[in-house]
Amino acid sequence: MADSTRIEHDFLGDREIPADVYYGVQTLRAIENFRITGIPIYIEPKMIQALGYVKKAAALANMDLDVLPEDIGQAIVRACDSVIAGDLNDQFVVDVIQGGAGTSTNMNANEVIANKALEILGHEKGKYDIVHPNNHVNCSQSTNDAYPTAFRVALLLIIPELTEAMKSLAKAFRDKSAGFRDVLKMGRTQLQDAVPMSLGQEFGAFATTISEDTERLDVVQALFHEINLGATAIGTGINAPSGYAPVAVDHLRRLIGIPLKSSEDLVEATWDTGAYVQLSGVLRRVAVKLSKICNDLRLLSSGPRAGFNEINLPKMQPGSSIMPGKVNPVIPEVVNQIAFQVIGMDLTVTLAAEAGQLQLNVMEPVMAFDLFVMLEMLRRGCRVLEEKCVTGITANRERCRELVLNSIGIVTALNPIIGYEASAAIAREALETGRPVHDLALEKGLIEKEKLDEILSVENLMNPRFFRKG
Amino acid sequence: MADSTRIEHDFLGDREIPADVYYGVQTLRAIENFRITGIPIYIEPKMIQALGYVKKAAALANMDLDVLPEDIGQAIVRACDSVIAGDLNDQFVVDVIQGGAGTSTNMNANEVIANKALEILGHEKGKYDIVHPNNHVNCSQSTNDAYPTAFRVALLLIIPELTEAMKSLAKAFRDKSAGFRDVLKMGRTQLQDAVPMSLGQEFGAFATTISEDTERLDVVQALFHEINLGATAIGTGINAPSGYAPVAVDHLRRLIGIPLKSSEDLVEATWDTGAYVQLSGVLRRVAVKLSKICNDLRLLSSGPRAGFNEINLPKMQPGSSIMPGKVNPVIPEVVNQIAFQVIGMDLTVTLAAEAGQLQLNVMEPVMAFDLFVMLEMLRRGCRVLEEKCVTGITANRERCRELVLNSIGIVTALNPIIGYEASAAIAREALETGRPVHDLALEKGLIEKEKLDEILSVENLMNPRFFRKG
Amino acid sequence: MADSTRIEHDFLGDREIPADVYYGVQTLRAIENFRITGIPIYIEPKMIQALGYVKKAAALANMDLDVLPEDIGQAIVRACDSVIAGDLNDQFVVDVIQGGAGTSTNMNANEVIANKALEILGHEKGKYDIVHPNNHVNCSQSTNDAYPTAFRVALLLIIPELTEAMKSLAKAFRDKSAGFRDVLKMGRTQLQDAVPMSLGQEFGAFATTISEDTERLDVVQALFHEINLGATAIGTGINAPSGYAPVAVDHLRRLIGIPLKSSEDLVEATWDTGAYVQLSGVLRRVAVKLSKICNDLRLLSSGPRAGFNEINLPKMQPGSSIMPGKVNPVIPEVVNQIAFQVIGMDLTVTLAAEAGQLQLNVMEPVMAFDLFVMLEMLRRGCRVLEEKCVTGITANRERCRELVLNSIGIVTALNPIIGYEASAAIAREALETGRPVHDLALEKGLIEKEKLDEILSVENLMNPRFFRKG
Amino acid sequence: MADSTRIEHDFLGDREIPADVYYGVQTLRAIENFRITGIPIYIEPKMIQALGYVKKAAALANMDLDVLPEDIGQAIVRACDSVIAGDLNDQFVVDVIQGGAGTSTNMNANEVIANKALEILGHEKGKYDIVHPNNHVNCSQSTNDAYPTAFRVALLLIIPELTEAMKSLAKAFRDKSAGFRDVLKMGRTQLQDAVPMSLGQEFGAFATTISEDTERLDVVQALFHEINLGATAIGTGINAPSGYAPVAVDHLRRLIGIPLKSSEDLVEATWDTGAYVQLSGVLRRVAVKLSKICNDLRLLSSGPRAGFNEINLPKMQPGSSIMPGKVNPVIPEVVNQIAFQVIGMDLTVTLAAEAGQLQLNVMEPVMAFDLFVMLEMLRRGCRVLEEKCVTGITANRERCRELVLNSIGIVTALNPIIGYEASAAIAREALETGRPVHDLALEKGLIEKEKLDEILSVENLMNPRFFRKG
Repeated sequence: MADSTRIEHDFLGDREIPADVYYGVQTLRAIENFRITGIPIYIEPKMIQALGYVKKAAALANMDLDVLPEDIGQAIVRACDSVIAGDLNDQFVVDVIQGGAGTSTNMNANEVIANKALEILGHEKGKYDIVHPNNHVNCSQSTNDAYPTAFRVALLLIIPELTEAMKSLAKAFRDKSAGFRDVLKMGRTQLQDAVPMSLGQEFGAFATTISEDTERLDVVQALFHEINLGATAIGTGINAPSGYAPVAVDHLRRLIGIPLKSSEDLVEATWDTGAYVQLSGVLRRVAVKLSKICNDLRLLSSGPRAGFNEINLPKMQPGSSIMPGKVNPVIPEVVNQIAFQVIGMDLTVTLAAEAGQLQLNVMEPVMAFDLFVMLEMLRRGCRVLEEKCVTGITANRERCRELVLNSIGIVTALNPIIGYEASAAIAREALETGRPVHDLALEKGLIEKEKLDEILSVENLMNPRFFRKG
Repeated sequence: MADSTRIEHDFLGDREIPADVYYGVQTLRAIENFRITGIPIYIEPKMIQALGYVKKAAALANMDLDVLPEDIGQAIVRACDSVIAGDLNDQFVVDVIQGGAGTSTNMNANEVIANKALEILGHEKGKYDIVHPNNHVNCSQSTNDAYPTAFRVALLLIIPELTEAMKSLAKAFRDKSAGFRDVLKMGRTQLQDAVPMSLGQEFGAFATTISEDTERLDVVQALFHEINLGATAIGTGINAPSGYAPVAVDHLRRLIGIPLKSSEDLVEATWDTGAYVQLSGVLRRVAVKLSKICNDLRLLSSGPRAGFNEINLPKMQPGSSIMPGKVNPVIPEVVNQIAFQVIGMDLTVTLAAEAGQLQLNVMEPVMAFDLFVMLEMLRRGCRVLEEKCVTGITANRERCRELVLNSIGIVTALNPIIGYEASAAIAREALETGRPVHDLALEKGLIEKEKLDEILSVENLMNPRFFRKG
Repeated sequence: MADSTRIEHDFLGDREIPADVYYGVQTLRAIENFRITGIPIYIEPKMIQALGYVKKAAALANMDLDVLPEDIGQAIVRACDSVIAGDLNDQFVVDVIQGGAGTSTNMNANEVIANKALEILGHEKGKYDIVHPNNHVNCSQSTNDAYPTAFRVALLLIIPELTEAMKSLAKAFRDKSAGFRDVLKMGRTQLQDAVPMSLGQEFGAFATTISEDTERLDVVQALFHEINLGATAIGTGINAPSGYAPVAVDHLRRLIGIPLKSSEDLVEATWDTGAYVQLSGVLRRVAVKLSKICNDLRLLSSGPRAGFNEINLPKMQPGSSIMPGKVNPVIPEVVNQIAFQVIGMDLTVTLAAEAGQLQLNVMEPVMAFDLFVMLEMLRRGCRVLEEKCVTGITANRERCRELVLNSIGIVTALNPIIGYEASAAIAREALETGRPVHDLALEKGLIEKEKLDEILSVENLMNPRFFRKG
Repeated sequence: MADSTRIEHDFLGDREIPADVYYGVQTLRAIENFRITGIPIYIEPKMIQALGYVKKAAALANMDLDVLPEDIGQAIVRACDSVIAGDLNDQFVVDVIQGGAGTSTNMNANEVIANKALEILGHEKGKYDIVHPNNHVNCSQSTNDAYPTAFRVALLLIIPELTEAMKSLAKAFRDKSAGFRDVLKMGRTQLQDAVPMSLGQEFGAFATTISEDTERLDVVQALFHEINLGATAIGTGINAPSGYAPVAVDHLRRLIGIPLKSSEDLVEATWDTGAYVQLSGVLRRVAVKLSKICNDLRLLSSGPRAGFNEINLPKMQPGSSIMPGKVNPVIPEVVNQIAFQVIGMDLTVTLAAEAGQLQLNVMEPVMAFDLFVMLEMLRRGCRVLEEKCVTGITANRERCRELVLNSIGIVTALNPIIGYEASAAIAREALETGRPVHDLALEKGLIEKEKLDEILSVENLMNPRFFRKG
């Protein structure tokens, strides 16, 4: 049908574009060139929103500095508002992994906004002599500054969602810690019985460690406040009017309510991807800790008969197609896998960062995709761990206490009184004979029964006081 | 609506299932438990197909050994055929990343096949007393053997697609090599001018290196011929009738036409993930080579004025939103990013393999997902590199030849005649004065003009003969 | 020889120890058990020094709290001073990679200090009834707190050495930047000619990016101020006298002059290795940036005739055994390799961190070794890059300018006047015909000669002003 | 002292060399340039030996083809024999990590051999007009072919040492497997009780998995049979006499007794590092498996009272500075750390491979160093695991059997008789009440006592027969 397409051209030639789409010829070429993941950039709506904010801030600054006519500028601003609202998400169709350092993403935005502005002004799509994707929408910008600025704004919008999920998970562990405060259990180092502790302490440590990670996230997030908007090509500011950068940054800051500021060295800021590597490193740290915690939860709930069996995870689903009644720790298991995925993607981000050359890092799209996925997977991992596992954990109090009282590790508490070597001899005998430490200690006559009982009391084992010799 | 759902139960309780879906209660629980990637397992249709083959082979073996009634068995076989044909793909909805070592994927298959078989037999879905997902469809199986066997079959179906794409890419390079046979150019080591070569040699090496990788893929592929079908739980063969394993493997072998065989140590085969690590290592090797090749293509086409400019890549799209006429090597760039993604995912596979414990590796789902993505991305990368880049590359013959004739590196060819140190002195003077090697060599009187001209002729530079001193 | 050995025993039995060594039976067992790298822990003298500080602080606190007799305590303090001074480094002989979570390192220190204290008190080595490695030197400590505290102190002593080397390297780049301020050159994105810039800007960006990394190092360094001294076994403080932790931390703080403080959650602090992962991540970031810089230096100095040839690196050594006069960028090349080593070791640290279980991470020794090597290699890399490369770099001014003036990329500067599409058309024609942008622009009559000359003047290309249309 | 040095010069100028050393000016420059690890290349004596073989083969071929005078050639051959014998190891002093793609290593060899040949001929060191490092020793060679050929020969000499250690470790596990054949124990999947097995099966799987890895090593080893000797600079064969490559390869093949052959594409072979990546991938696979096995050994020996406690590892050293009698699984722990180191170094090899550019990969030295370390550490890890751990493992038979008989997992064996759902109900009740499966099954009247007893007999649990319903 002749009227279902329009013709657009770029310096590579003419192309037919479906008449109803807002994107244009450069987007079309990108779609054809990059059939890589099949995942379009709108998979991360915050990135689309961020592009809208950046283009809007640029348009406002361009009007302020008289390089964009007011009527066109206002139409662009309104078109950006549609993008920010998410109304045009389905028009952001280039593949998340693309060559060209984000040019295709930037041009996808320029074309969609230009055509939306044309619509607002009452024109047909494609009338770029009136509103032009490059000359007007991309005015005073280059992909070199517009794309990384949008990427950073997107991260600033997304990171807090992960932080919130982590805080909520930490709180769930903290609550469990309170509930388990008086559950005496054996502490283990190197999987060997060590000295007693409370299950509350163990869960409290999970809360603490996650809370520390939220602090690390806050610190790294601040790195993204520094943007290179106004750098244009390679940081020279070429083709932007004098004074553009501060005005544009100021508009963007007010639009999103985050204290953005211009990089002091725009040339460096244009190729540097250190902040992404830093963020990736923190996300990897979060993954490492979540994995360690999940490993612990799986160990502590191992059994039910031939394992540690100190805690019970909520039963989420039958665990076997052949073994009746088997229930597996599926939630920690899936979080372990999230962690492995994140650690792998962290390597991808690192490789991409190292591959930057001269005035630009062309590999930013894969960094963006991987960081978005890492943030989202970790957020979901925290939520699922909290909601479908941690909140429902119960303790096997009797089992925990029994393991302590039968243990050899409690001999450590006798050290200050009877010395390391006498204690070691008792430990050895206990191991060989299976007899309790208490009886052996008494038998050796190295300590009075009353003191021994006090030291080996549940209360003292959980909160050890220091006993002096003699 | 009362009739739009049916009730199913497992040992965790009752659940409502939409009446029209083929999956059942365990799939439902998995959907709810694992909202991780949002990507369902049918993203890789070959895995669904492979599950169909495995379940069909098991049913046939079960009938052979009289542990499955013929009528139920035949219905299951027909249901499996639907699965193999892809007709029920949209019923395979559990998340690609899941806890439970693949139990949810296996149960998703068991439930879909059971309900399809019920339909074939004229019963309503959910009538598991007639055809039961566990007792009938999963008969003589455990997730421990059914899942990894299906995973391996899927890999055997997918790997050849990558191999074919690689062979096609290698051929494209080989064709270019033929076309560039007589293009004299400067060879470079460490980015410094070395000695002359032909552009055909350079492109021929790309073909050779990719061909070697296809051989590595063939070797690793053979590892997947060894399967653990019949191992059931942890490799003991518990609950499978005597002689089941060889019969089931035989059926599967005939169904897919690949020489499968039983692992000799079924206990090891049930937890071992070495073959996945090996495949992942080979895919990483492919990625490393593709990345190196793309780096070279980008270097050789750098410029057009301030770079090497020896070759031209086809222009795929405008390269800049601000710099008119700029065209970027977007296809090699996107293949570089694919390589980084693959190398990162290879790490994920490694981490998942290392996390196996005791009689099972519960992390297989993330390994499966990552390997599937790696295979698919590499395949697409090879195709896009071939079709949108390599076949359209042209050489700048004059530029290439000029760089050689102006170079200092050609002095190496004089070594055997005038010795390393005299050559080094000429090289040094050429560098300092900018004068040609030819003139300086002549001036020194260390070699006759005729011999010098012969040695430095284009023909000899491209195919160096050995000249003896004197 | 009967008198050349002494007998020591532990609960595994008796062993002969060479009479003249300060270490004892447990060190001997560790030597025999861990023949892994052949590298003894004294390879990092700061770690030995740190062990001395920790043991001294503990002894002082133990005397303060009356759990260590004054005479023994003072002898231990003096023995620690010898360790701190490095006098006993050759006694720290256990392998850097060891099982046991650092127990062997800790016992190596305990034994050496005990025997040195015995010597100070006028006793023979091995008279542990007088000064005992465990009961006295290790008093109020566990490996669980003594080892990680020493590790952290060592890091606090070492990190500033790297920071200093980085600052010095940044300054060298900054100095070069000043010298190259007026060298006009072509900026490149994606290896394609982009827009002009100055070589000073390019080198200034190297300085900036390294300076940013020193800030990141400062931030991560502060994480190590938090220590778990006094945690003893698994963070319970068992066997340490009441109030010990703050007193011991206070002593250590004064000994090393760094604002140390106790972790608030000693149970978490005892197993948590997040700070090491964070440091490792920052070191990886430094490595990534150094690698990127070295890649750039190699590219910019590629040639001399068939490459970019914009800068000259100092000639460090003949570059080829066969190609006379060839000189290679060996210093950047070796720094690239350092970067790869560091990125690999960062993965090792990550894997080790993830492997922590329950109340301890037994993999700390490999983390310590790798972090020490990473810090040292990066320090050496920065120094060698500064001293043997950066300070001697010179610019090929004429070549740089020529590449700009012949380029097509300068057409970008005409955009605001003639529009993106007209500029693109000129670019295309320039590429096809080889004619200069200047002539083509004039020919089209789209801009006046005077304005064109002003825009394309060297001065404006280096510091582009904004020209309004018309 | 005037006579304690000699003067040597290269095209960068004159340098004093200690009179007694065999290396020369280029080695001296390399020493000064590369103070990176402090580890000299003789750390891997097989690499020095391999250099000797390569230089000897080249000299023999050069004499055959009349490009090297017989007297000089014979002296070089004898000098190479000294190198091969290891007599000059301490003269190979350049740093293992170096820029220049191995040129410094190659020149170190060339200089040492030239000076040794001079000594053999009765001349003073440094008389390079008689025997020249480049013109004679390096005759018909480039670093581009001599270095990678030596590297490959070294790997061919080293890999079998690892294979042998792995075979020995596998045998130790196989022997244990035989001894544990009749130890009934609980199998576990996902750390949850699954179905019974024998401890012999568990240890047999360790033997099997390591044996499979030796096969993978054999396969990858064959890749190194292909060498590029004769390629000279960038694979063109420039400056080598006609027919040199096959003659030189033939000599080398006979010298080391390994079926070497020339690469068919010498240009590709000169830059390709795929075989190193492949080897690295296999070593990583070995590391992953060793780590998994060590994790299992640590889990199975966890306790002694609050863990699995199924096996006892030999006690190697006291395990704690504070907890008397504690003994840790230090040998598996150190092997885990070896594995992490190897996996990290595998990444370094990958990064180095990806960084190859155009006609050479300049990063081979770091690949060589890391592969040598990986091979050596894995070899030591296998040996220490075998000798200090596996051979001394004992089983706690009673404990193992007790865990099975008390388990719920044995209910799986009832499936074929009573169905999955009835079994699940029994499992659930057993878990809730703590009552034995046996009693509950009987109580339900679903199976006769005789058959139940037979199914749950120790003999049947260890080697399950298939029981048909009814």
